[in-house]
Amino acid sequence: METLLLDPDDVDAAADMAEVIVAVEEAFAAYERGDVQMPAKSYIDLPEYNGDFRSMPAYMEADDWDAAGIKWVNVHTDNPDEYDLPTVMGTMVYSDPRNAFPLSIMDGTTLTRKRTGAAAAVATDHLAIEDANSLGIVGAGVQSYTQLEAISVVRDIDEVVVADKRDEAVEAFIDHFGDEFDVRRGSIAEAASCDVLSTVTPVRSPIVSADDLADHTHINAMGADAPDKNELEQDVVTDARIVIDDHEQCTHSGEINVPWSEGVLDDADISAELGEIVVGDEPRRRDSDGVTVFDSTGLAIQDVAAARAVYERATADGAGTSFGLVDTKLR
Amino acid sequence: METLLLDPDDVDAAADMAEVIVAVEEAFAAYERGDVQMPAKSYIDLPEYNGDFRSMPAYMEADDWDAAGIKWVNVHTDNPDEYDLPTVMGTMVYSDPRNAFPLSIMDGTTLTRKRTGAAAAVATDHLAIEDANSLGIVGAGVQSYTQLEAISVVRDIDEVVVADKRDEAVEAFIDHFGDEFDVRRGSIAEAASCDVLSTVTPVRSPIVSADDLADHTHINAMGADAPDKNELEQDVVTDARIVIDDHEQCTHSGEINVPWSEGVLDDADISAELGEIVVGDEPRRRDSDGVTVFDSTGLAIQDVAAARAVYERATADGAGTSFGLVDTKLR
Repeated sequence: METLLLDPDDVDAAADMAEVIVAVEEAFAAYERGDVQMPAKSYIDLPEYNGDFRSMPAYMEADDWDAAGIKWVNVHTDNPDEYDLPTVMGTMVYSDPRNAFPLSIMDGTTLTRKRTGAAAAVATDHLAIEDANSLGIVGAGVQSYTQLEAISVVRDIDEVVVADKRDEAVEAFIDHFGDEFDVRRGSIAEAASCDVLSTVTPVRSPIVSADDLADHTHINAMGADAPDKNELEQDVVTDARIVIDDHEQCTHSGEINVPWSEGVLDDADISAELGEIVVGDEPRRRDSDGVTVFDSTGLAIQDVAAARAVYERATADGAGTSFGLVDTKLR
Repeated sequence: METLLLDPDDVDAAADMAEVIVAVEEAFAAYERGDVQMPAKSYIDLPEYNGDFRSMPAYMEADDWDAAGIKWVNVHTDNPDEYDLPTVMGTMVYSDPRNAFPLSIMDGTTLTRKRTGAAAAVATDHLAIEDANSLGIVGAGVQSYTQLEAISVVRDIDEVVVADKRDEAVEAFIDHFGDEFDVRRGSIAEAASCDVLSTVTPVRSPIVSADDLADHTHINAMGADAPDKNELEQDVVTDARIVIDDHEQCTHSGEINVPWSEGVLDDADISAELGEIVVGDEPRRRDSDGVTVFDSTGLAIQDVAAARAVYERATADGAGTSFGLVDTKLR
């Protein structure tokens, strides 16, 4: 038996976004049903290198399949300047739960982008207005691409407004998607007035205010990933229907962590976890809903689910590189 | 930048045992000095498959180098019968601590055997009589090979006595080492009367009794790996100088866990952790020492240290297969 190696291009090609979205939606459902094992992320902190490692093992059981694996990922903020390497890199080991054989080892960075876009799409599917056709994106970095890729699977997006101070980032985004969508550069306010808004920035203080939003905008708040970081002004979240991916992670380091730590939000202000909506225990968008916010922090089961979708597609397509990595001899 | 893939043969070839022993000894020293980060192993238990996954991330800082990585390893007891796969398989990701680039992905199964042999060699070096020349091995399975490989680096072993009920296992062992050592099959008692004894069995109840030992035998008790398992009769451990690799692991699932849980042993009966001896805080073998026991459970830092030794040697030798696994593009 051999392990299928999937490099960034392989993962990109095998990540059929419709399939990844289905898999990630099944992950949220499994989470709500309790059909997952997801040990707490464990950290290795290396302040001497301004970095850390995180290990994210997980197992999940969907209706017709199950999946296991681990993502080993880092955040090293000096990497671009000192090593000409990205701040974040990831390696995913995707294993057969039945016997633990490592079916695939794949680029975890590309995978993370895909599963993060897929999570926004699942939330958008359940929370945006049905005929949403405009998408605003604040932040034209690496995560912005999969927002459009994924959300355009669940809604018929025509118009895309992208806001970013960096000219070259906006131009690259428009170059990439200009043939497929009506993409234009706009202000944050213009992006925020779309039917769907995804914020994918590393900002430490809010940049989106309530006045900028349409009365029905669904927001995917993807950027906040640490205590004290948030992208949305306080009155956006206090007035919105809030849906989270995970209570502990969101209150600790998600979009809502700042108002939560200040006592502005409490459990009564959280409408649902996304999984509760996916399984039907909490309602999808209702006529009475105005602005909705999905606070996404990212779960290890999303990686495992996305890895399965990628592996299955790559195998069907004959993609990737087979390698006899582990000793399978019986002795 | 590319990641170096090392398959079982590559790991075997690049694991220069003298180098691995030095690296593992540095790991024990770093552990004693507190220069390690080793989050608790996290488990995913899959009783429906009679299996589990374990993730073992670690970082360690030696005098002249540091190393980080994670081993993802399983125990699936039905694998040989149902899948023609080993019960245990491992995948090791070895990363550069400075920037987290995955320098190498290697077979973790072969690596585990090497670092386990190396740990026994470190203990033997500090605890066996200086002129030890006979090695008894109880259990001729996969772990037995690296016991002899490693211990013969630190002592001038001539005579090897191997005890196992399985004829073919004993024959394979003798075939493998017969040209290099005077290897013969013997009883457990004959193996136990050697200068050094390594027990590498999966037995659940003791098979080595005190009467069988020489008065100076150093025992490497490698086999016990779960609560209620041990290889040595109670009077062996109560009369011996006991050295452990890690207090929590050994009292929970190492050789001493059974007498410990029965209240037969307590902290006063543990002479030292191996790291304390390596750094010189506790004495090596003393003239007054009789039988000594090293209780080995295996630490994630041993894997990381051994992975570094293997990676450095493989790189120097131009071995392995380079693969552009992770996305290193800056955007």
